[in-house]
Amino acid sequence: MVVKDCQLGKNVNIIEPVNLYNCKIGNNCFIGPFVEIQKNAYIGDFSRIQSHSFICEGVTIGKNSFISHGTMFTNDLFDSPDINSWIMRKTYVGDNVRIGSNTTILPVKIGDNSIIGAGSVVTKDVPPNCIVAGNPAKILRKLGD
Amino acid sequence: MVVKDCQLGKNVNIIEPVNLYNCKIGNNCFIGPFVEIQKNAYIGDFSRIQSHSFICEGVTIGKNSFISHGTMFTNDLFDSPDINSWIMRKTYVGDNVRIGSNTTILPVKIGDNSIIGAGSVVTKDVPPNCIVAGNPAKILRKLGD
Amino acid sequence: MVVKDCQLGKNVNIIEPVNLYNCKIGNNCFIGPFVEIQKNAYIGDFSRIQSHSFICEGVTIGKNSFISHGTMFTNDLFDSPDINSWIMRKTYVGDNVRIGSNTTILPVKIGDNSIIGAGSVVTKDVPPNCIVAGNPAKILRKLGD
Repeated sequence: MVVKDCQLGKNVNIIEPVNLYNCKIGNNCFIGPFVEIQKNAYIGDFSRIQSHSFICEGVTIGKNSFISHGTMFTNDLFDSPDINSWIMRKTYVGDNVRIGSNTTILPVKIGDNSIIGAGSVVTKDVPPNCIVAGNPAKILRKLGD
Repeated sequence: MVVKDCQLGKNVNIIEPVNLYNCKIGNNCFIGPFVEIQKNAYIGDFSRIQSHSFICEGVTIGKNSFISHGTMFTNDLFDSPDINSWIMRKTYVGDNVRIGSNTTILPVKIGDNSIIGAGSVVTKDVPPNCIVAGNPAKILRKLGD
Repeated sequence: MVVKDCQLGKNVNIIEPVNLYNCKIGNNCFIGPFVEIQKNAYIGDFSRIQSHSFICEGVTIGKNSFISHGTMFTNDLFDSPDINSWIMRKTYVGDNVRIGSNTTILPVKIGDNSIIGAGSVVTKDVPPNCIVAGNPAKILRKLGD
Protein backbone atom coordinates (compact mmCIF):
# COMPACT_ATOMS: atom_id res chain seq x y z
CA MET A 1 0.00 0.00 0.00
CA VAL A 2 1.42 3.36 -1.03
CA VAL A 3 0.16 6.39 0.92
CA LYS A 4 2.79 9.08 0.55
CA ASP A 5 2.79 12.64 1.82
CA CYS A 6 -1.02 12.77 2.17
CA GLN A 7 -3.03 14.83 4.65
CA LEU A 8 -5.48 12.32 6.09
CA GLY A 9 -8.38 13.31 8.35
CA LYS A 10 -9.67 11.25 11.27
CA ASN A 11 -11.24 7.81 10.78
CA VAL A 12 -10.20 7.40 7.16
CA ASN A 13 -10.65 3.78 6.10
CA ILE A 14 -8.28 2.73 3.30
CA ILE A 15 -8.41 -0.76 1.74
CA GLU A 16 -5.10 -1.78 0.18
CA PRO A 17 -3.63 -1.79 -2.37
CA VAL A 18 -3.93 1.91 -3.23
CA ASN A 19 -1.68 4.60 -4.65
CA LEU A 20 -2.29 7.93 -2.92
CA TYR A 21 0.19 10.78 -2.94
CA ASN A 22 0.23 14.42 -1.87
CA CYS A 23 -3.55 14.56 -1.71
CA LYS A 24 -5.87 15.75 1.07
CA ILE A 25 -8.59 13.47 2.40
CA GLY A 26 -11.12 14.70 4.96
CA ASN A 27 -12.54 13.00 8.03
CA ASN A 28 -14.49 9.74 7.94
CA CYS A 29 -13.74 8.98 4.30
CA PHE A 30 -13.58 5.53 2.71
CA ILE A 31 -11.02 4.70 0.01
CA GLY A 32 -11.48 1.29 -1.70
CA PRO A 33 -8.82 -0.99 -3.16
CA PHE A 34 -7.11 -0.30 -6.50
CA VAL A 35 -7.68 3.44 -6.16
CA GLU A 36 -5.22 6.11 -7.26
CA ILE A 37 -5.50 9.67 -5.96
CA GLN A 38 -2.97 12.17 -7.29
CA LYS A 39 -1.32 15.20 -5.79
CA ASN A 40 -3.44 18.24 -5.01
CA ALA A 41 -6.72 16.32 -5.22
CA TYR A 42 -9.12 16.97 -2.35
CA ILE A 43 -11.78 14.63 -0.92
CA GLY A 44 -14.30 16.15 1.51
CA ASP A 45 -15.50 14.69 4.81
CA PHE A 46 -17.63 11.55 4.73
CA SER A 47 -17.07 10.98 0.99
CA ARG A 48 -16.43 7.48 -0.31
CA ILE A 49 -14.19 6.57 -3.23
CA GLN A 50 -14.97 3.04 -4.36
CA SER A 51 -12.57 0.48 -5.84
CA HIS A 52 -10.80 0.96 -9.18
CA SER A 53 -11.38 4.72 -9.26
CA PHE A 54 -8.88 7.32 -10.37
CA ILE A 55 -8.93 10.85 -8.93
CA CYS A 56 -6.47 13.12 -10.67
CA GLU A 57 -4.76 16.37 -9.86
CA GLY A 58 -7.21 19.23 -10.18
CA VAL A 59 -10.22 17.36 -8.75
CA THR A 60 -12.08 18.65 -5.69
CA ILE A 61 -14.84 16.46 -4.25
CA GLY A 62 -17.25 17.85 -1.65
CA LYS A 63 -18.71 16.29 1.47
CA ASN A 64 -20.70 13.09 1.74
CA SER A 65 -20.39 12.26 -1.95
CA PHE A 66 -20.25 8.71 -3.29
CA ILE A 67 -17.89 7.90 -6.17
CA SER A 68 -18.65 4.39 -7.41
CA HIS A 69 -16.31 1.74 -8.73
CA GLY A 70 -14.18 2.41 -11.78
CA THR A 71 -14.90 6.14 -11.97
CA MET A 72 -12.24 7.93 -14.00
CA PHE A 73 -11.69 11.65 -13.64
CA THR A 74 -9.65 13.55 -16.24
CA ASN A 75 -7.81 16.86 -16.27
CA ASP A 76 -6.43 16.99 -19.81
CA LEU A 77 -8.54 17.80 -22.87
CA PHE A 78 -5.68 16.87 -25.23
CA ASP A 79 -5.81 20.44 -26.50
CA SER A 80 -2.13 21.12 -26.11
CA PRO A 81 -0.49 21.32 -29.53
CA ASP A 82 2.51 19.50 -28.05
CA ILE A 83 1.74 15.93 -27.01
CA ASN A 84 4.46 16.18 -24.40
CA SER A 85 2.92 19.12 -22.58
CA TRP A 86 -0.63 19.66 -21.33
CA ILE A 87 -3.01 22.23 -19.85
CA MET A 88 -4.42 21.17 -16.50
CA ARG A 89 -8.20 21.55 -16.21
CA LYS A 90 -10.15 21.44 -12.95
CA THR A 91 -13.18 19.46 -11.83
CA TYR A 92 -15.49 20.25 -8.94
CA VAL A 93 -17.93 17.72 -7.48
CA GLY A 94 -20.37 19.15 -4.94
CA ASP A 95 -21.79 17.71 -1.73
CA ASN A 96 -24.10 14.68 -1.57
CA VAL A 97 -23.36 13.73 -5.17
CA ARG A 98 -23.70 10.11 -6.31
CA ILE A 99 -21.61 9.01 -9.30
CA GLY A 100 -22.35 5.57 -10.77
CA SER A 101 -19.77 2.91 -11.63
CA ASN A 102 -17.55 3.02 -14.72
CA THR A 103 -18.29 6.69 -15.26
CA THR A 104 -15.91 9.06 -17.06
CA ILE A 105 -15.84 12.66 -15.83
CA LEU A 106 -14.33 15.31 -18.09
CA PRO A 107 -13.26 18.57 -16.38
CA VAL A 108 -16.66 19.92 -15.28
CA LYS A 109 -18.62 21.16 -12.28
CA ILE A 110 -21.21 18.79 -10.80
CA GLY A 111 -23.72 20.49 -8.52
CA ASP A 112 -24.84 19.35 -5.06
CA ASN A 113 -27.16 16.34 -4.74
CA SER A 114 -26.92 15.36 -8.41
CA ILE A 115 -26.84 11.73 -9.55
CA ILE A 116 -24.70 10.49 -12.45
CA GLY A 117 -25.87 7.18 -13.97
CA ALA A 118 -23.45 4.27 -14.23
CA GLY A 119 -21.42 4.16 -17.44
CA SER A 120 -21.96 7.84 -18.23
CA VAL A 121 -19.44 10.10 -19.94
CA VAL A 122 -19.93 13.56 -18.41
CA THR A 123 -18.74 16.22 -20.86
CA LYS A 124 -20.63 19.29 -19.59
CA ASP A 125 -21.40 20.90 -16.26
CA VAL A 126 -24.23 19.27 -14.29
CA PRO A 127 -26.53 21.62 -12.34
CA PRO A 128 -27.47 20.76 -8.74
CA ASN A 129 -30.31 18.30 -8.06
CA CYS A 130 -30.21 16.64 -11.49
CA ILE A 131 -30.12 13.05 -12.71
CA VAL A 132 -27.93 12.60 -15.80
CA ALA A 133 -26.88 9.55 -17.81
CA GLY A 134 -25.51 8.45 -21.18
CA ASN A 135 -22.56 9.07 -23.49
CA PRO A 136 -22.49 12.03 -23.65
CA ALA A 137 -24.46 12.43 -20.41
CA LYS A 138 -27.76 14.29 -20.69
CA ILE A 139 -30.16 15.50 -18.03
CA LEU A 140 -32.94 12.92 -17.54
CA ARG A 141 -34.84 14.88 -14.90
CA LYS A 142 -34.55 17.15 -11.89
CA LEU A 143 -34.82 15.58 -8.45
CA GLY A 144 -38.29 16.21 -7.04
CA ASP A 145 -39.95 16.47 -10.47
CA MET B 1 -3.36 -10.65 -1.82
CA VAL B 2 -6.51 -10.53 0.28
CA VAL B 3 -8.77 -13.60 0.16
CA LYS B 4 -10.81 -13.54 3.32
CA ASP B 5 -13.54 -15.90 4.47
CA CYS B 6 -14.29 -17.15 0.94
CA GLN B 7 -15.58 -20.58 -0.09
CA LEU B 8 -13.26 -21.60 -2.90
CA GLY B 9 -13.84 -24.67 -5.10
CA LYS B 10 -11.13 -26.93 -6.45
CA ASN B 11 -8.54 -25.67 -8.95
CA VAL B 12 -9.34 -22.00 -8.56
CA ASN B 13 -6.57 -19.90 -10.11
CA ILE B 14 -6.21 -16.45 -8.54
CA ILE B 15 -3.69 -13.88 -9.81
CA GLU B 16 -2.70 -11.38 -7.15
CA PRO B 17 -3.37 -8.69 -6.11
CA VAL B 18 -7.11 -9.23 -5.52
CA ASN B 19 -9.63 -8.31 -2.84
CA LEU B 20 -12.11 -11.16 -2.29
CA TYR B 21 -14.19 -11.53 0.83
CA ASN B 22 -17.06 -13.71 2.01
CA CYS B 23 -17.87 -14.80 -1.54
CA LYS B 24 -18.35 -18.26 -3.03
CA ILE B 25 -16.34 -19.34 -6.06
CA GLY B 26 -16.96 -22.67 -7.81
CA ASN B 27 -14.52 -25.23 -9.18
CA ASN B 28 -12.00 -24.49 -11.94
CA CYS B 29 -12.56 -20.73 -11.92
CA PHE B 30 -10.02 -18.08 -12.91
CA ILE B 31 -9.79 -14.74 -11.08
CA GLY B 32 -7.45 -12.15 -12.66
CA PRO B 33 -5.43 -9.42 -10.94
CA PHE B 34 -6.99 -6.21 -9.58
CA VAL B 35 -10.36 -7.92 -9.10
CA GLU B 36 -12.69 -7.25 -6.19
CA ILE B 37 -15.47 -9.70 -5.32
CA GLN B 38 -17.73 -8.75 -2.43
CA LYS B 39 -19.56 -10.75 0.15
CA ASN B 40 -22.44 -12.98 -0.91
CA ALA B 41 -21.43 -12.91 -4.59
CA TYR B 42 -21.40 -16.30 -6.30
CA ILE B 43 -19.27 -17.42 -9.26
CA GLY B 44 -20.21 -20.74 -10.94
CA ASP B 45 -17.87 -23.54 -12.00
CA PHE B 46 -15.48 -22.87 -14.88
CA SER B 47 -16.28 -19.14 -15.02
CA ARG B 48 -13.49 -16.63 -15.53
CA ILE B 49 -13.34 -13.14 -14.05
CA GLN B 50 -10.74 -11.10 -15.90
CA SER B 51 -8.53 -8.34 -14.51
CA HIS B 52 -9.89 -5.05 -13.16
CA SER B 53 -13.44 -6.37 -12.71
CA PHE B 54 -15.72 -5.67 -9.78
CA ILE B 55 -18.35 -8.18 -8.68
CA CYS B 56 -20.57 -6.78 -5.98
CA GLU B 57 -22.87 -8.22 -3.36
CA GLY B 58 -26.06 -9.46 -4.97
CA VAL B 59 -24.41 -10.83 -8.14
CA THR B 60 -24.77 -14.48 -9.15
CA ILE B 61 -22.80 -15.70 -12.15
CA GLY B 62 -23.53 -19.09 -13.73
CA LYS B 63 -21.21 -21.75 -15.10
CA ASN B 64 -18.61 -21.36 -17.82
CA SER B 65 -19.21 -17.64 -18.25
CA PHE B 66 -16.51 -15.19 -19.26
CA ILE B 67 -16.40 -11.75 -17.63
CA SER B 68 -13.87 -9.60 -19.47
CA HIS B 69 -11.52 -6.97 -18.12
CA GLY B 70 -12.86 -3.95 -16.35
CA THR B 71 -16.45 -5.17 -16.07
CA MET B 72 -18.31 -3.32 -13.33
CA PHE B 73 -21.43 -4.76 -11.76
CA THR B 74 -23.72 -2.56 -9.66
CA ASN B 75 -26.35 -3.21 -7.01
CA ASP B 76 -27.55 0.27 -6.17
CA LEU B 77 -29.87 2.31 -8.39
CA PHE B 78 -29.37 5.41 -6.23
CA ASP B 79 -33.10 5.32 -5.57
CA SER B 80 -32.86 5.60 -1.84
CA PRO B 81 -34.02 9.03 -0.70
CA ASP B 82 -31.22 8.97 1.87
CA ILE B 83 -27.74 9.07 0.32
CA ASN B 84 -26.43 7.23 3.36
CA SER B 85 -28.70 4.20 2.94
CA TRP B 86 -29.41 2.06 -0.13
CA ILE B 87 -31.63 -0.69 -1.52
CA MET B 88 -29.64 -3.73 -2.67
CA ARG B 89 -30.63 -4.95 -6.14
CA LYS B 90 -29.69 -8.35 -7.56
CA THR B 91 -28.07 -9.40 -10.82
CA TYR B 92 -28.14 -12.85 -12.41
CA VAL B 93 -25.78 -13.89 -15.21
CA GLY B 94 -26.58 -17.24 -16.81
CA ASP B 95 -24.34 -20.02 -18.11
CA ASN B 96 -21.99 -19.65 -21.10
CA VAL B 97 -22.37 -15.88 -21.14
CA ARG B 98 -19.60 -13.70 -22.59
CA ILE B 99 -19.33 -10.12 -21.31
CA GLY B 100 -16.94 -7.77 -23.14
CA SER B 101 -14.37 -5.51 -21.52
CA ASN B 102 -15.21 -2.22 -19.82
CA THR B 103 -18.87 -3.13 -19.60
CA THR B 104 -21.23 -1.74 -16.96
CA ILE B 105 -23.98 -4.06 -15.74
CA LEU B 106 -26.94 -2.54 -13.92
CA PRO B 107 -29.01 -4.96 -11.78
CA VAL B 108 -30.51 -7.19 -14.51
CA LYS B 109 -30.86 -10.80 -15.63
CA ILE B 110 -28.67 -11.96 -18.51
CA GLY B 111 -29.82 -15.20 -20.15
CA ASP B 112 -27.69 -18.23 -21.03
CA ASN B 113 -25.31 -18.02 -24.01
CA SER B 114 -25.77 -14.29 -24.55
CA ILE B 115 -22.94 -12.00 -25.60
CA ILE B 116 -22.49 -8.44 -24.32
CA GLY B 117 -20.32 -6.21 -26.52
CA ALA B 118 -17.33 -4.44 -25.04
CA GLY B 119 -18.04 -1.01 -23.58
CA SER B 120 -21.78 -1.65 -23.21
CA VAL B 121 -23.97 -0.28 -20.45
CA VAL B 122 -26.60 -2.94 -19.76
CA THR B 123 -29.70 -1.33 -18.26
CA LYS B 124 -32.37 -3.95 -19.07
CA ASP B 125 -32.71 -7.72 -18.89
CA VAL B 126 -31.04 -9.61 -21.76
CA PRO B 127 -32.86 -12.72 -23.04
CA PRO B 128 -30.89 -15.94 -23.67
CA ASN B 129 -28.96 -16.36 -26.95
CA CYS B 130 -28.76 -12.66 -27.79
CA ILE B 131 -25.99 -10.32 -28.82
CA VAL B 132 -26.32 -6.85 -27.30
CA ALA B 133 -24.13 -3.74 -27.39
CA GLY B 134 -24.17 0.02 -26.86
CA ASN B 135 -25.02 2.60 -24.20
CA PRO B 136 -27.72 1.76 -23.35
CA ALA B 137 -27.25 -1.78 -24.68
CA LYS B 138 -29.70 -2.90 -27.36
CA ILE B 139 -30.24 -6.30 -28.96
CA LEU B 140 -28.27 -6.51 -32.22
CA ARG B 141 -29.41 -10.01 -33.13
CA LYS B 142 -30.24 -13.46 -31.83
CA LEU B 143 -27.55 -16.13 -32.04
CA GLY B 144 -28.26 -18.43 -34.96
CA ASP B 145 -30.12 -15.74 -36.95
CA MET C 1 4.82 -6.18 -8.14
CA VAL C 2 4.92 -8.84 -10.82
CA VAL C 3 7.22 -8.19 -13.80
CA LYS C 4 7.97 -11.58 -15.30
CA ASP C 5 10.01 -12.44 -18.39
CA CYS C 6 9.64 -8.95 -19.91
CA GLN C 7 12.07 -7.15 -22.21
CA LEU C 8 12.39 -3.70 -20.66
CA GLY C 9 14.19 -0.79 -22.34
CA LYS C 10 16.23 1.84 -20.54
CA ASN C 11 14.67 4.28 -18.09
CA VAL C 12 11.34 2.49 -17.82
CA ASN C 13 9.41 3.84 -14.83
CA ILE C 14 6.97 1.31 -13.35
CA ILE C 15 4.66 2.18 -10.44
CA GLU C 16 3.61 -0.88 -8.46
CA PRO C 17 1.46 -2.89 -8.24
CA VAL C 18 1.42 -4.10 -11.85
CA ASN C 19 1.12 -7.42 -13.63
CA LEU C 20 3.43 -7.53 -16.68
CA TYR C 21 4.53 -10.73 -18.34
CA ASN C 22 6.38 -11.73 -21.50
CA CYS C 23 5.85 -8.29 -23.05
CA LYS C 24 8.31 -5.87 -24.63
CA ILE C 25 8.52 -2.28 -23.41
CA GLY C 26 10.74 0.31 -25.14
CA ASN C 27 13.00 2.98 -23.70
CA ASN C 28 11.77 5.81 -21.49
CA CYS C 29 8.27 4.39 -21.01
CA PHE C 30 6.00 4.98 -18.03
CA ILE C 31 3.75 2.23 -16.66
CA GLY C 32 1.27 3.34 -13.97
CA PRO C 33 -0.14 1.32 -11.08
CA PHE C 34 -2.84 -1.36 -11.50
CA VAL C 35 -1.77 -2.01 -15.09
CA GLU C 36 -1.71 -5.43 -16.73
CA ILE C 37 0.29 -6.03 -19.92
CA GLN C 38 0.09 -9.51 -21.42
CA LYS C 39 2.54 -11.61 -23.34
CA ASN C 40 3.55 -10.52 -26.84
CA ALA C 41 2.28 -6.98 -26.36
CA TYR C 42 4.69 -4.25 -27.48
CA ILE C 43 4.98 -0.68 -26.16
CA GLY C 44 7.16 1.75 -28.18
CA ASP C 45 9.73 4.21 -26.83
CA PHE C 46 8.49 7.17 -24.77
CA SER C 47 4.92 5.84 -24.57
CA ARG C 48 3.02 6.10 -21.31
CA ILE C 49 0.45 3.60 -20.03
CA GLN C 50 -1.57 5.18 -17.27
CA SER C 51 -3.09 3.50 -14.23
CA HIS C 52 -5.82 0.84 -14.45
CA SER C 53 -5.16 0.06 -18.12
CA PHE C 54 -5.12 -3.38 -19.69
CA ILE C 55 -2.96 -4.13 -22.73
CA CYS C 56 -3.61 -7.58 -24.10
CA GLU C 57 -1.75 -9.99 -26.30
CA GLY C 58 -1.89 -8.83 -29.90
CA VAL C 59 -1.55 -5.11 -29.14
CA THR C 60 1.30 -3.04 -30.60
CA ILE C 61 1.63 0.58 -29.47
CA GLY C 62 3.95 2.99 -31.29
CA LYS C 63 6.26 5.68 -29.98
CA ASN C 64 5.39 8.62 -27.80
CA SER C 65 1.74 7.62 -27.42
CA PHE C 66 -0.32 8.31 -24.33
CA ILE C 67 -2.76 5.69 -23.08
CA SER C 68 -4.91 7.23 -20.34
CA HIS C 69 -6.29 5.66 -17.21
CA GLY C 70 -8.62 2.69 -17.42
CA THR C 71 -8.12 2.04 -21.13
CA MET C 72 -9.12 -1.52 -22.04
CA PHE C 73 -7.82 -3.17 -25.18
CA THR C 74 -9.46 -6.35 -26.47
CA ASN C 75 -8.38 -9.15 -28.80
CA ASP C 76 -11.44 -11.38 -28.89
CA LEU C 77 -14.59 -10.57 -30.85
CA PHE C 78 -16.47 -13.47 -29.25
CA ASP C 79 -16.89 -14.90 -32.73
CA SER C 80 -15.64 -18.35 -31.89
CA PRO C 81 -18.54 -20.83 -31.91
CA ASP C 82 -16.95 -22.52 -28.90
CA ILE C 83 -16.95 -20.34 -25.79
CA ASN C 84 -13.85 -22.17 -24.61
CA SER C 85 -11.74 -21.29 -27.64
CA TRP C 86 -11.12 -17.94 -29.33
CA ILE C 87 -9.61 -16.24 -32.37
CA MET C 88 -6.92 -13.71 -31.48
CA ARG C 89 -7.32 -10.35 -33.24
CA LYS C 90 -4.62 -7.69 -33.43
CA THR C 91 -4.57 -3.98 -32.63
CA TYR C 92 -2.10 -1.36 -33.83
CA VAL C 93 -1.77 2.07 -32.25
CA GLY C 94 0.50 4.48 -34.15
CA ASP C 95 2.93 7.11 -32.91
CA ASN C 96 1.93 10.26 -31.01
CA VAL C 97 -1.58 8.94 -30.36
CA ARG C 98 -3.55 10.15 -27.34
CA ILE C 99 -6.24 7.84 -25.96
CA GLY C 100 -8.57 9.25 -23.30
CA SER C 101 -9.49 7.61 -20.02
CA ASN C 102 -11.98 4.74 -19.67
CA THR C 103 -11.80 4.02 -23.39
CA THR C 104 -12.50 0.60 -24.91
CA ILE C 105 -10.48 -0.36 -27.98
CA LEU C 106 -11.73 -3.21 -30.15
CA PRO C 107 -9.15 -4.82 -32.47
CA VAL C 108 -8.46 -1.92 -34.87
CA LYS C 109 -5.71 0.25 -36.32
CA ILE C 110 -5.34 3.77 -34.95
CA GLY C 111 -3.27 6.09 -37.14
CA ASP C 112 -0.47 8.41 -36.05
CA ASN C 113 -1.32 11.60 -34.14
CA SER C 114 -4.98 10.73 -33.65
CA ILE C 115 -6.90 11.57 -30.49
CA ILE C 116 -9.52 9.29 -28.93
CA GLY C 117 -11.94 11.04 -26.56
CA ALA C 118 -12.38 9.78 -23.02
CA GLY C 119 -15.07 7.11 -22.57
CA SER C 120 -15.08 6.15 -26.27
CA VAL C 121 -15.70 2.66 -27.61
CA VAL C 122 -13.55 2.33 -30.73
CA THR C 123 -15.04 -0.30 -33.05
CA LYS C 124 -13.51 0.72 -36.40
CA ASP C 125 -10.11 1.77 -37.71
CA VAL C 126 -9.17 5.40 -37.03
CA PRO C 127 -7.23 7.22 -39.78
CA PRO C 128 -4.18 9.33 -38.85
CA ASN C 129 -4.66 12.89 -37.59
CA CYS C 130 -8.30 12.45 -36.51
CA ILE C 131 -10.25 13.24 -33.39
CA VAL C 132 -12.86 10.59 -32.57
CA ALA C 133 -15.27 10.13 -29.65
CA GLY C 134 -18.47 8.36 -28.61
CA ASN C 135 -19.94 4.86 -28.37
CA PRO C 136 -19.38 3.76 -31.05
CA ALA C 137 -16.62 6.27 -31.72
CA LYS C 138 -17.12 8.55 -34.73
CA ILE C 139 -14.78 11.04 -36.37
CA LEU C 140 -15.44 14.53 -35.01
CA ARG C 141 -12.87 16.28 -37.17
CA LYS C 142 -9.42 16.07 -38.70
CA LEU C 143 -6.56 17.78 -36.90
CA GLY C 144 -5.77 21.10 -38.59
CA ASP C 145 -9.33 21.56 -39.92
